[in-house]
Amino acid sequence: MHMNEYTYEQIEIGTKESFEVSVTEEMLESFKKITGDINPLHNDAEYARSMKYEDRVVYGMLTASFLSTLAGVYLPGKRSLIMETNIKYTKPVYCGDTISVEGTVTDKNDMFRFIILKVVMKNHRGDKVLRAEMKVRVMDE
Amino acid sequence: MHMNEYTYEQIEIGTKESFEVSVTEEMLESFKKITGDINPLHNDAEYARSMKYEDRVVYGMLTASFLSTLAGVYLPGKRSLIMETNIKYTKPVYCGDTISVEGTVTDKNDMFRFIILKVVMKNHRGDKVLRAEMKVRVMDE
Repeated sequence: MHMNEYTYEQIEIGTKESFEVSVTEEMLESFKKITGDINPLHNDAEYARSMKYEDRVVYGMLTASFLSTLAGVYLPGKRSLIMETNIKYTKPVYCGDTISVEGTVTDKNDMFRFIILKVVMKNHRGDKVLRAEMKVRVMDE
Repeated sequence: MHMNEYTYEQIEIGTKESFEVSVTEEMLESFKKITGDINPLHNDAEYARSMKYEDRVVYGMLTASFLSTLAGVYLPGKRSLIMETNIKYTKPVYCGDTISVEGTVTDKNDMFRFIILKVVMKNHRGDKVLRAEMKVRVMDE
């Protein structure tokens, strides 16, 4: 797998990176093992349907975990250190959905050498499922 | 595993829940499989040490994933639906650290039936590693 290696200087306001990822049942199982989050909305399709969802809902924090990939692999990649993440969950994600993750640099702080990333995640139907703003330190080596 | 089932009415400003979790190498492996985040800071102890860290650093978003457990299992538990999470990462977490996660209700919105949780995570040395504010919908059944 390729990993970008942007330096702080190479990043400009407007620099953009994106990737796609399909959410699988295995990911939900792994996430449940990590967190111990046994909530039925994410584990019991029948319960989720009784709450008016199409199927069991993917953990919001699992979808959010792709922010780690965005910063750590794509923008800036290698020199990434996430400082803050402000996340809004706007639509349910289901197993089988393919999520596009797009981050755009909206600001840079030369004094503390961090960037602000505006992030939008959409499902394969084009619905926005998550919006985020991240503050990411770009480390020197 | 026990899961709380607070209703919106049962929750008061000041209601508090907490739990502890130990971060393992297996969790890092699983998180890497889910996200594809191959960043060396989280995977290569030698590289992490060259960047002045004690050891490879636990993914910030992995530590953040325990917010899922806090809301989905503890407060409010069953009726949880996370709307927003604002997270600040304040100290590195390492494999083997035991993290205490504590959430306190600081506000309630009767119109839209959500609560605001203030969350603090500390390691076993008492250092604050993560602070968060969450907006969590408490669903009716």
